[in-house]
Amino acid sequence: METLKIIKIGGNIINDTGALQQFIEGFSKLKGLKILVHGGGNSATETSQRLGLEVKKVEGRRITDQETLDVITMIYAGKLNKTIVAQLQANDCDAFGLSGADGNLIQSVKRPVTSIDYGFAGDIVQVNTSLIETLLKEAITPVFCALTHNKQGQLLNTNADTIASELAIAFASTYSVELFYCFERNGVLADISNDNSVIDALDSQAYQTLFQQGKIADGMVPKLDNCFSALRKKVTKVCIGKPEMIFDSNSIHTILQL
Amino acid sequence: METLKIIKIGGNIINDTGALQQFIEGFSKLKGLKILVHGGGNSATETSQRLGLEVKKVEGRRITDQETLDVITMIYAGKLNKTIVAQLQANDCDAFGLSGADGNLIQSVKRPVTSIDYGFAGDIVQVNTSLIETLLKEAITPVFCALTHNKQGQLLNTNADTIASELAIAFASTYSVELFYCFERNGVLADISNDNSVIDALDSQAYQTLFQQGKIADGMVPKLDNCFSALRKKVTKVCIGKPEMIFDSNSIHTILQL
Repeated sequence: METLKIIKIGGNIINDTGALQQFIEGFSKLKGLKILVHGGGNSATETSQRLGLEVKKVEGRRITDQETLDVITMIYAGKLNKTIVAQLQANDCDAFGLSGADGNLIQSVKRPVTSIDYGFAGDIVQVNTSLIETLLKEAITPVFCALTHNKQGQLLNTNADTIASELAIAFASTYSVELFYCFERNGVLADISNDNSVIDALDSQAYQTLFQQGKIADGMVPKLDNCFSALRKKVTKVCIGKPEMIFDSNSIHTILQL
Repeated sequence: METLKIIKIGGNIINDTGALQQFIEGFSKLKGLKILVHGGGNSATETSQRLGLEVKKVEGRRITDQETLDVITMIYAGKLNKTIVAQLQANDCDAFGLSGADGNLIQSVKRPVTSIDYGFAGDIVQVNTSLIETLLKEAITPVFCALTHNKQGQLLNTNADTIASELAIAFASTYSVELFYCFERNGVLADISNDNSVIDALDSQAYQTLFQQGKIADGMVPKLDNCFSALRKKVTKVCIGKPEMIFDSNSIHTILQL
């Protein structure tokens, strides 16, 4: 099977002009089929504050009310997505900036209200693989922002890590999919205070142990849940680390294993 | 030749939720190939003011400095474009929201500085018709916002009327192109103070006469220049009026003629 690389980048790259440019130059040179998924970093929060909006969080998670959704749509789908696309074009990478609403590519449902009402947050229900494949066959690189829709006119804020893993899973029977989560650390750390304690290979059993010991916590938990979910659903390779891992397979990072 | 309808909508529809919804329902039902181009209305100005930015104009034309470009990218390519796309999807119109940077679909150059420096304003130099055709053949409706790029990483604010006419011209040898400019009036007026003075058919000679008499002025001049430019370059049909003209050919509007 042909290889498809799906690469997720977050705030540490997006909010640093130099880092973003360096990443884009490297990413543009990558051979073969590729999809980029980007988060928003703290740009949306900054713009919310400039507009005088209150940023609402419950248990550390952002609550997406209508005004917050508007800001997210402006920043993620507008400023960040088009800035990235224009820079990729300058590096001869023929990119298409996309939300899940475009071409109905990623459809979601508004997260059900339980003890918390997350507002306009979306849980993915369907990926339109055939239309994305058409783009890939036209040598287009899809660039997804963290926004989907419910096919009933409602845009929904959707976790970029989850978009990356759901895309990877949706293509796992068509391509040999390699999923890369780029973030600010060298990989999954055995000791959160020591950036040199990278676990080279982490399997699901070791993950459970570290989780129970409280050594893996907070934002790493949903990220790793996405990773193992992808592996269980036949994604070929899942890695976490700094963007260097994409361009140099010898650079330090964590490979996830079942 | 197959017919391609290119429809431009502006602020009077975009800034009115009810009017936008009504337009989208009608547009979604239109048979055949179609492209939507939307301006931004006064949304960008409002957001600029909320962010405390000064809106700079010279001779009534907006000067696009870096901060203004950021706001335009947020509003046009983000909020407006994705809101329109999500609503079209809800009406079973499979839309793709696009800027000129996506797929390098519309390439422009920064407007040369003469007596006025318009800042990051783009003049179109090239339309990538083959990729847009690929989308049309996949039954996708492209939805363009008023933003292009220079293929060197720079996004450029570009007049939506001009985007519509340049798209129409680019496709004039492939399709029978019908170009519709929707705005707040019933058509081109012989008497600006009387909305019932619509000129049913306006040719270029009559336009010159009315222009010299000062009866056609201001924003109508570049709009009509775009219309006649399209007709000279083999666009089949060019109309100006309220959106009703698209759905009901008997409704009052102006047809342009060479």
